[in-house]
Amino acid sequence: MGDAVSERLERLNSMLKRRGIILPAFEIHGGAAGLYDFGPLGGRLRNRVQQIWLDHWLSQGDITELSCPTITPYSVLEASGHVGEFSDFMTACDACEEAFRADTLLEEYHSTPDSLSKDELAQELATHSPPCPNCNERKWGEVSAQNLMFNTRIGSGKSGRDGFIRPETAQGMFTNFQSLYRHFRQRLPFGAVQVGKGYRNEISPRQGMIRLRELNMAELEYFIDPEVEIKHDFTAWNDKEMRLVPDDGLEVSMSIPAALESGIIRHGTVAWYMARTADLLEKLGIDLTQLRFRQHEGGEMAHYASDCWDAEIHASYGWVECVGIAHRGCYDLSAHEQYTGQRLKAWRAWDIPKEIDVEITTINAAMAGPAFRAQAGAVKQALEALNTTPSEFPFTLQLEDGSEVEIEEQHVKIERRCETINGEWFTPHVVEPAFGIDRIIWHILDHAWTETEKNGEPYSLLKLSPDIAPLDVAVMPLFEKDGMEIIAGELHSSLCGTSGILSSYDASGSIGRRYARADEVGIPWAVTIDHQSLEDKTATVRNRDSQQQIRVKIEAIPNLIHSSSMIDLF
Amino acid sequence: MGDAVSERLERLNSMLKRRGIILPAFEIHGGAAGLYDFGPLGGRLRNRVQQIWLDHWLSQGDITELSCPTITPYSVLEASGHVGEFSDFMTACDACEEAFRADTLLEEYHSTPDSLSKDELAQELATHSPPCPNCNERKWGEVSAQNLMFNTRIGSGKSGRDGFIRPETAQGMFTNFQSLYRHFRQRLPFGAVQVGKGYRNEISPRQGMIRLRELNMAELEYFIDPEVEIKHDFTAWNDKEMRLVPDDGLEVSMSIPAALESGIIRHGTVAWYMARTADLLEKLGIDLTQLRFRQHEGGEMAHYASDCWDAEIHASYGWVECVGIAHRGCYDLSAHEQYTGQRLKAWRAWDIPKEIDVEITTINAAMAGPAFRAQAGAVKQALEALNTTPSEFPFTLQLEDGSEVEIEEQHVKIERRCETINGEWFTPHVVEPAFGIDRIIWHILDHAWTETEKNGEPYSLLKLSPDIAPLDVAVMPLFEKDGMEIIAGELHSSLCGTSGILSSYDASGSIGRRYARADEVGIPWAVTIDHQSLEDKTATVRNRDSQQQIRVKIEAIPNLIHSSSMIDLF
Repeated sequence: MGDAVSERLERLNSMLKRRGIILPAFEIHGGAAGLYDFGPLGGRLRNRVQQIWLDHWLSQGDITELSCPTITPYSVLEASGHVGEFSDFMTACDACEEAFRADTLLEEYHSTPDSLSKDELAQELATHSPPCPNCNERKWGEVSAQNLMFNTRIGSGKSGRDGFIRPETAQGMFTNFQSLYRHFRQRLPFGAVQVGKGYRNEISPRQGMIRLRELNMAELEYFIDPEVEIKHDFTAWNDKEMRLVPDDGLEVSMSIPAALESGIIRHGTVAWYMARTADLLEKLGIDLTQLRFRQHEGGEMAHYASDCWDAEIHASYGWVECVGIAHRGCYDLSAHEQYTGQRLKAWRAWDIPKEIDVEITTINAAMAGPAFRAQAGAVKQALEALNTTPSEFPFTLQLEDGSEVEIEEQHVKIERRCETINGEWFTPHVVEPAFGIDRIIWHILDHAWTETEKNGEPYSLLKLSPDIAPLDVAVMPLFEKDGMEIIAGELHSSLCGTSGILSSYDASGSIGRRYARADEVGIPWAVTIDHQSLEDKTATVRNRDSQQQIRVKIEAIPNLIHSSSMIDLF
Repeated sequence: MGDAVSERLERLNSMLKRRGIILPAFEIHGGAAGLYDFGPLGGRLRNRVQQIWLDHWLSQGDITELSCPTITPYSVLEASGHVGEFSDFMTACDACEEAFRADTLLEEYHSTPDSLSKDELAQELATHSPPCPNCNERKWGEVSAQNLMFNTRIGSGKSGRDGFIRPETAQGMFTNFQSLYRHFRQRLPFGAVQVGKGYRNEISPRQGMIRLRELNMAELEYFIDPEVEIKHDFTAWNDKEMRLVPDDGLEVSMSIPAALESGIIRHGTVAWYMARTADLLEKLGIDLTQLRFRQHEGGEMAHYASDCWDAEIHASYGWVECVGIAHRGCYDLSAHEQYTGQRLKAWRAWDIPKEIDVEITTINAAMAGPAFRAQAGAVKQALEALNTTPSEFPFTLQLEDGSEVEIEEQHVKIERRCETINGEWFTPHVVEPAFGIDRIIWHILDHAWTETEKNGEPYSLLKLSPDIAPLDVAVMPLFEKDGMEIIAGELHSSLCGTSGILSSYDASGSIGRRYARADEVGIPWAVTIDHQSLEDKTATVRNRDSQQQIRVKIEAIPNLIHSSSMIDLF
């Protein structure tokens, strides 16, 4: 990072902290690395970004929102592979015992230390003996894999179970697959979204909001039939050139549909979510010239993934991965199915039925009829759909409508049949766009922050989109007397009482200082109640970006701001 | 719980699970007690309730939103008192080693076992020897206090620190006090809200959504000057009689301002938040005849609290505490101030200044002038405002604008002055309304769920407010042919593309069955595209509660639903 960039970064961080947008958490208690607060002006910014994210995906019409616990039993994350593989390699200094990520110690000696294996890292450490960032000694212990999940214990006593605080929001959507499949009435494709916290117990967090221990995440799992090509409508993106870095590392400028056509993007649904992601980031205020999609190289991609693109945004920290869009194949559902024995599949009806010889578990009508009455038909259907022949009785069988029945041995019989098979069960594939909300908010702020001069003095503006600005308007009585404070107070109340609008009442200091204070945190509109307001019930409205002012009837202001039509008057 | 109530509860829970509103989390992995998912139809319901909660308080005009980490260092929760006191008494069965809350084992033998001390619990257990719920043996181990916080470790190696997952959202708002005080430009009263997760590692969770290990919480901390009486405007509540249970236990029906006037409610700001809470709960769909405010009795109230009322809602589980509104005095800010040595106070200007003899730390202008230049005045102000004489140098001093400077010994001098004192620092008091969002959602669902009959068959409706229903409208092509499916698909897309609207496309089964399916989960409107739609571009719109139908131009439907004006046509 150059000096000018790091000095600008320091000024930006200082403003964000001073104004209560983003600040180190628990600072009066000495702070805690990798934990940040969204402060008095950050909380609503975060919420608005999250709500726009949700609206963007829910508007697609085949996506629904879930909310699952962050406390997660051990078995769920063992099945998903996180217990085994969600780790970084660490080592500790022999002298001071402080722990570090092995790869970060080697950054000066190797161009891609994070690609090294455990043994390679140990060898490089032995070769270069980098100094300890804490005590400067150069003796390192063994390299070991450190799991990045926060662990905890659910319950107490004998029934207590090991668990983790989840590393991502995705698993709850996979474990809910049956419920989603019912909700969408057994029709693919469909998707689920979840916005919430994810946790990574980083060994040595750095870089402010870029590497956190507690993250605001937002993930989408889109379930598709691998044999059915979805016809995505790319018309709106045909003429939009994007910066793409395919896995050969050479950046090209190309539209997303053209990249799909030419085989650079390997799957239509991955391309679709790349295009829709670019739209969303633009809507949130990301400068698209500072956005690129980078394809994972073979070794970088998980073994089960068939294509994966990161949306990277460029700002103070260089290019930073903010979104990952991965075709995950059938990995996740298969993993949970194998671990739990529960069917996580969808039904594919064939156009032409097949005749085959099968051994099938079905109901013994003589016993099951009286036992299940009206449900007997549904029980028969569910039994015949089982993958395996049941070996233990009684067992719980879930029917298509989600209700459950207890099946005893006497209720079933095994039949050999020449069956007409109309279709088959298969494991849906998943395309997953995963968003780091904190990193995106960081980049929105970095792109929006504009340093300039006014009357020879430094002056800064935060050019946030009015859709996400934490305050929509500032109301300023020129003086708190003669009734100006009453009119201003009433307008402030009326604005705050308008759905979706939040106003700030500011009566401290000169009017110029108040405008500067509002500009600094990106309040799009400032309304000043002055002497003329007392006479004709108008006020000046000032636009943040153009700094132009017009006079408007006070009573019209709440609706003009609410309907976003204030801008048309300028 | 009577048989009829428990049978209704079972049917309700079964519907909520089957339809994916609320379901046990991680069920394919065997589940985990005290953890629930908001499923395909629950996620948006939860989000809408949370957003209405936020809007309700932010509209007050002097409240802002924060978002702090859930991972919390040990010291924060030691300062707050949670490490010492946030616990239940437990005991374990000698035979099977299973742990239980001691008070719940005694429910059949004592009327208020949760009020017993540790020794009393041990004595009662010895006297009655209740059977173990797990193995039926009657031998119990010692009674011990079990802290209810989930613990974890932040970081690894030598710099790793003990921490907890927070038990409530409040602490982050207290630790942010300085930032809030700056944001509101040093003017009380003001408030902060936070919506997020809280965690309680219950020993034996029961009662579905009532006792969870991971909770959706929403808290408001309102900071006030104890010497200034706030003039709350109770006009809107003068004629609203509420059910109040003062600490003598005898329910009265009285308006909130009348109860304040008569001294039953002991503080105006507590009364204000009781009134505003009742409004919010009514807006969310709680039946106000099933709401009461119950005042804490002396022994039940925390030692620092001067008045505390629970909003209790009545439904399947009897009366359940869903909101607590407490006057917490200066407890929280004082506790963090004592622990950290950081000033968490506000400035009170006196009407009449006082002359006193003081020893004061101020700047040594000769040295501090050149060192701090333009900031020297601010440094002087901050130094003179220190509570104590600094004993160690250098130290970091925070200036009023939030920026920080390093103070060396040479920069300061001690002066004895006869000073005119214009005011004083004091610790603000806090009134805290704390909401259990899960419990409130549970009661909304319980109050909304209506069992009836249709054509001699059981029929159920979920009469949710259209503001919180997880789906706003269902679009149903009578048949998926002749173009009806195209018109329906286009209307569905257009509805989902309308801000704030989520539509469900349903083409499965008879139209009657589809209406029933929509009514069961509370979709306010159902639109049917039929043969006539092909000719005149109208569709039938059906109201959930009245089941009336009218014909409307299809193109008008999105706007009619968006503007909530559909109801006016009925």
